[in-house]
Amino acid sequence: MMRTRPLKVALLGCGVVGSEVARIMTTHADDLAARIGAPVELAGVAVRRPSKVREGIPAELITTDATALVKSGDIDVVVEVIGGIEPARTLITTALEHGASVVSANKALLAQDGAALHAFAEEHDKDLYYEAAVAGAIPLIRPLRESLAGDKVNRVLGIVNGTTNFILDKMDSTGAGYQEALDEATALGYAEADPTADVEGFDAAAKAAILAGIAFHTRVRLDDVYREGMTEVTAADFASAKEMGCTIKLLAICERAADGGSVTARVHPAMIPLTHPLASVRGAYNAVFVESDAAGQLMFYGPGAGGAPTASAVLGDLVAVCRNRLSGATGPGDSAYTQLPVSPMGEVVTRYHISLDVADKPGVLAQVATVFAEHGVSIDTVRQQGKDGEASLVVVTHRASDASLNGTVEALRTLDTVRGVASIMRVEGE
Amino acid sequence: MMRTRPLKVALLGCGVVGSEVARIMTTHADDLAARIGAPVELAGVAVRRPSKVREGIPAELITTDATALVKSGDIDVVVEVIGGIEPARTLITTALEHGASVVSANKALLAQDGAALHAFAEEHDKDLYYEAAVAGAIPLIRPLRESLAGDKVNRVLGIVNGTTNFILDKMDSTGAGYQEALDEATALGYAEADPTADVEGFDAAAKAAILAGIAFHTRVRLDDVYREGMTEVTAADFASAKEMGCTIKLLAICERAADGGSVTARVHPAMIPLTHPLASVRGAYNAVFVESDAAGQLMFYGPGAGGAPTASAVLGDLVAVCRNRLSGATGPGDSAYTQLPVSPMGEVVTRYHISLDVADKPGVLAQVATVFAEHGVSIDTVRQQGKDGEASLVVVTHRASDASLNGTVEALRTLDTVRGVASIMRVEGE
Repeated sequence: MMRTRPLKVALLGCGVVGSEVARIMTTHADDLAARIGAPVELAGVAVRRPSKVREGIPAELITTDATALVKSGDIDVVVEVIGGIEPARTLITTALEHGASVVSANKALLAQDGAALHAFAEEHDKDLYYEAAVAGAIPLIRPLRESLAGDKVNRVLGIVNGTTNFILDKMDSTGAGYQEALDEATALGYAEADPTADVEGFDAAAKAAILAGIAFHTRVRLDDVYREGMTEVTAADFASAKEMGCTIKLLAICERAADGGSVTARVHPAMIPLTHPLASVRGAYNAVFVESDAAGQLMFYGPGAGGAPTASAVLGDLVAVCRNRLSGATGPGDSAYTQLPVSPMGEVVTRYHISLDVADKPGVLAQVATVFAEHGVSIDTVRQQGKDGEASLVVVTHRASDASLNGTVEALRTLDTVRGVASIMRVEGE
Repeated sequence: MMRTRPLKVALLGCGVVGSEVARIMTTHADDLAARIGAPVELAGVAVRRPSKVREGIPAELITTDATALVKSGDIDVVVEVIGGIEPARTLITTALEHGASVVSANKALLAQDGAALHAFAEEHDKDLYYEAAVAGAIPLIRPLRESLAGDKVNRVLGIVNGTTNFILDKMDSTGAGYQEALDEATALGYAEADPTADVEGFDAAAKAAILAGIAFHTRVRLDDVYREGMTEVTAADFASAKEMGCTIKLLAICERAADGGSVTARVHPAMIPLTHPLASVRGAYNAVFVESDAAGQLMFYGPGAGGAPTASAVLGDLVAVCRNRLSGATGPGDSAYTQLPVSPMGEVVTRYHISLDVADKPGVLAQVATVFAEHGVSIDTVRQQGKDGEASLVVVTHRASDASLNGTVEALRTLDTVRGVASIMRVEGE
């Protein structure tokens, strides 16, 4: 049942992702038409630099006036791959007002304004899809929102930033330090000239906010996400991790509290056991591990970035949104009915690996152990290594709240026998 | 926008999966209602043994007359978790005729009669969903059909049978032989008393047929799937695999030919490199690795069987189908528009690892190499080990067709100096 009037698509942005979207729309036009039930036609491409040669895109489709394009009134779907907050936000709301559904790959915007945009789309009875906003090509939003719609997700543990995973994997496999691994990532194009958004965890935090909201059917704002970067992870940390049968990953962790009454979302480096499926995620790949009541443990793995992979996710959404338009329905939209509060980091409960530089003399361990006990943090293992009057003490705790652990560390720093706290790292995925 | 009239669900079968479906429908009723937009109500449960006590299911819902239940006319969704061909098939078509949409977990039926059932559902403008039929809880059909709808899938490599993966993992990690590992799987409940369907690859072949059809938008029947079981895999094969940096998995492999004009589907044990993401899939877990043009390499991992995991997939479908009914639409149905021919196994091209028992005397390698050359099979590496006048020769080939390889092996068997062909194993995932 193929109808002949094509669905019209406006493409906003024609960079790495946009040009791939345009290319595949052209080369795979017949397949897309068969899968949708109608042909799709590129009706316009809004760009900043119209003079740039764009192979395969007819010059008459190029415009610098994105607003006029989305306002033209006969656009079925607007694909937004500009990124950033403005003008993307205004263009999306204008598109929805003028009758178009929207497919976006914009994690920053969705993490910041997802609630308002969803409400706006629903008010206008249009779809707003954004599979490409989290973990590139990996189908994640659709599985969480649809496949697990009959289940209860308790935890999402994700490697959602390829740049940092490349760096950490390099440190793990070669023993390199952070700077050396970052330099290699930059040279190979895995890290940007200013890597801040990646290495400080801002990118991962935006994705954590989106994932937590979808997984727990609630609202998690970017500000709700605790964030620690991975610039202070050292080769020594990797050596410690290896001794524990672990590696180190920058994780986005979204959890439902044991009593079900609240959620947490955080991004930080953490040790995970080598036996955990996330431990073998190499290079710039992404993977998200999901734990739910009925399904148990699931993992979704793939390329988290790049033009073609991101375009794959955008086009999957485009097909779905086009089908919805043909059937006169909209897909499953925002689902934040649980309205669970987001607890602060202090209430997060996990295990910790702490390296202390201490004086190598009798009684130190007793002193240190007393501080842990006073703060209600139970010790799992202690390993002491001495040399030249100095010693290091590696303590791995049982599960404790972040607040208790912080109190413990503060008190440890006041001990004469503790020369310094070399590192504190959370242990996850056990 | 919650409507108050509940959607009525008929459950056919109340075994391991069905009882979990009923349990979750009760315990998670509020969540399901919020996610669907209307409450769902269990309207009847068809069972074979009505006298069995079924906790949490009101006795008045139990019936032995499944036909009357699906014919009652006010059922919105029929959930079929009986399994097998009949009476499941007739009940599904009767349900569709009487206005219900259908959610099924029945791989055997879908693999055998998927085309006819899809056509029947479409004719009646109803949904037929079956995420649970392949790889239990792992979202796979929805990602392939929807998330990758804008992409071109070229290859699906899957560990889709938990029993055989448990056995092979045990052999790999302990050095046990097949029988010993099977006995342990049986004792732990991972293998059935008659393990034929699992170990001979019948179960995986049904899943391969379903996956190939969805991945390539074509029709692949169960008979089109080449099938070899894993009962002849030996501890010696694992030792050989280790020497190559590989392990052995029972794989379901669906491929599009390089020219795009045909597809193949097969199930057999194969060596895969330890660095391949599928190599680290342990125990009874399943995982499916997908290669596509734009997305690149994706993997979906999780529990492939069990009551609760399968129920999770069933309920995800139930929510989707209920939403579709409320919006008056149907979801993306069957998509077999490419109608690609399925090539026979002889045309499959891959690499091979062959162990030969040969006489330990000069000239044997030259003879053997000549046979390979005569059949157009190019050798990658040869390793020779001699002891007591006997020797073993391990040959790893470059890519060659199955037909060429079979011709080679037949000719090798006629050589005086070849005492026997100890094993032939395909090498995949490189």
